[in-house]
Amino acid sequence: MEFAEKTLRQEYKFRGKIMCARVDDVELPNGNPAYREVCEHVGGVGVLPIDKDGNVILVRQFRYPFREVIYEIPAGKMDHGPEDAADCGLRELKEETGYTAGKLIPLGCMYPSPGFLTEITYLYAALDLTAGESAPDEDEFVERVVLPFTELERMIEADEVRDGKTITAAFRARLKGLV
Amino acid sequence: MEFAEKTLRQEYKFRGKIMCARVDDVELPNGNPAYREVCEHVGGVGVLPIDKDGNVILVRQFRYPFREVIYEIPAGKMDHGPEDAADCGLRELKEETGYTAGKLIPLGCMYPSPGFLTEITYLYAALDLTAGESAPDEDEFVERVVLPFTELERMIEADEVRDGKTITAAFRARLKGLV
Repeated sequence: MEFAEKTLRQEYKFRGKIMCARVDDVELPNGNPAYREVCEHVGGVGVLPIDKDGNVILVRQFRYPFREVIYEIPAGKMDHGPEDAADCGLRELKEETGYTAGKLIPLGCMYPSPGFLTEITYLYAALDLTAGESAPDEDEFVERVVLPFTELERMIEADEVRDGKTITAAFRARLKGLV
Repeated sequence: MEFAEKTLRQEYKFRGKIMCARVDDVELPNGNPAYREVCEHVGGVGVLPIDKDGNVILVRQFRYPFREVIYEIPAGKMDHGPEDAADCGLRELKEETGYTAGKLIPLGCMYPSPGFLTEITYLYAALDLTAGESAPDEDEFVERVVLPFTELERMIEADEVRDGKTITAAFRARLKGLV
């Protein structure tokens, strides 16, 4: 492959439950040696639920790395073993918002930070929604928020929504004419 | 703060040049203990250059975590010390594409993966462009690509562009009427 870098040596510096830190020695296309830090991550799924009135369902939750409560689409890590991304998305949608979906439309993938992170986020739009009781586990604190898609767009433009997967799902839903 | 988690203990497992791996013990809002893995990252800047004809300038480069050549906006890490994000953006734009910009318009921030990663990506649109020679350093392999904004939208919709910062910058430029 053009520009490809050859791995000479890999060393794991930390192996956690959701991420691993790795340092690699590589050979560049020009033959020079280089050093790469890589964060391996289990990957995740995000679901943009759109109801028949053109509202979207988001969740507000405290995100520890930023010590902030932020808006995001319902999402989860693929940490229950090798499960199908769509199944994971439907499970997280139900747990976090109580909604079930009659139809799931793929919205492609997002690479959050391709320079150093292996994480891939699989995205879907969820349609034909039925509301129900949410069932977060005891230690999960999420609040469901229903708002018009146009309001989500306003919040993205105003830098009030900053989450990469939420913005990517909203843009692709717009481009595909789902809203 | 509502939902806030209290840090009881932090331990660094790896300290690298661009990232650190940390594990924390926290106390949840309900008093229960929990464990958090956090990846600290130096942060970065991405710049969407838009010329007077409505074309955008992207770069193609090999991204080691995926072993793929992908399309992205010009971008860089804030790894030269505490520099201003706008200065970092202009420097990376020049190095990777050769363009200089007469005007930089803030496009807010993006959180690539707020569940575990502290990285923040600062985004700008670059206007009033002047083309010039790119000056990547010897070990940087990037290829400049000029294409209509509508083609970038097509590629985002078709899942051919997957980079979170590129999609976020494009959506905000569209919402702000810059294209």
